[in-house]
Amino acid sequence: MGFYIRKGKKEDMASVLKLVTELAVFEKEPDAVTINVEDLVNNGFKENPAFSTFVAEYKNEIVGMALFYNRFSTWDGPSIHLEDLIVTEKYRRKGIGKALYDKVLKEALQKGVKRVEWAVLNWNTPAIAFYKSTGATLFEDWNICQIGDKKIKHYLSKK
Amino acid sequence: MGFYIRKGKKEDMASVLKLVTELAVFEKEPDAVTINVEDLVNNGFKENPAFSTFVAEYKNEIVGMALFYNRFSTWDGPSIHLEDLIVTEKYRRKGIGKALYDKVLKEALQKGVKRVEWAVLNWNTPAIAFYKSTGATLFEDWNICQIGDKKIKHYLSKK
Repeated sequence: MGFYIRKGKKEDMASVLKLVTELAVFEKEPDAVTINVEDLVNNGFKENPAFSTFVAEYKNEIVGMALFYNRFSTWDGPSIHLEDLIVTEKYRRKGIGKALYDKVLKEALQKGVKRVEWAVLNWNTPAIAFYKSTGATLFEDWNICQIGDKKIKHYLSKK
Repeated sequence: MGFYIRKGKKEDMASVLKLVTELAVFEKEPDAVTINVEDLVNNGFKENPAFSTFVAEYKNEIVGMALFYNRFSTWDGPSIHLEDLIVTEKYRRKGIGKALYDKVLKEALQKGVKRVEWAVLNWNTPAIAFYKSTGATLFEDWNICQIGDKKIKHYLSKK
């Protein structure tokens, strides 16, 4: 349909943040995004970038993106974590998400990593069906645990 | 009880791998560990290390360890992922796991990150109770998804 996938550049980070915010709304966490464009530029384009992106461009507009970075599995060694995969609502169901996903998997093979990992909301059934159709495994017995800096300070201050 | 926590060194990686394997057995995946000591040394002690460790030493023996690395949250920016937190069975329930956990949280504050994240098996109730008691949140609506290199190759070859 005339879109193409390429590496994300500094100039794309405003569009990337817009997509991140759109995904947060979809995930029912509209106020969750606390970072800004500068944070993305500073972290993604420093000497050892904290992440990389692929963006989907259509008629000079960024309509989707995948953001990923390296992780390390003590079972399998270096791996890739796919933090976000987003296509703006208007352009969904056109194969753009799949193209971005495929690009990340190709990158993983090129880097020689043994595994790509991500998290999916358990009510996002179309996404789950798609991931499973590609050969991915869903681990329903693992839960994600998080503690934020305020809670950490509170916990450590009790000692 | 006379243990102390310090940064893991190259020479500790054999003990670290032993603990990783002990955890895999506990997690009912005894054959999951495919990496070796050299992989740990090469990835953990290169110019931009893929991970860091804290080890718990007791009478010149490594009896526990925490392995962690940087991640990037598109909501909160730089974060720390705690990949493994293990105390060898003989030395559990002596506060060593808690000391390692606290050390990672302190490291997170020092680095100025907004979040520490990890995964826990949903049947590991003592661990979940401990994490919750520290202020951590368990996300039961997120599932972890993974695809390995063999499955990636198979999927991409179908195109």
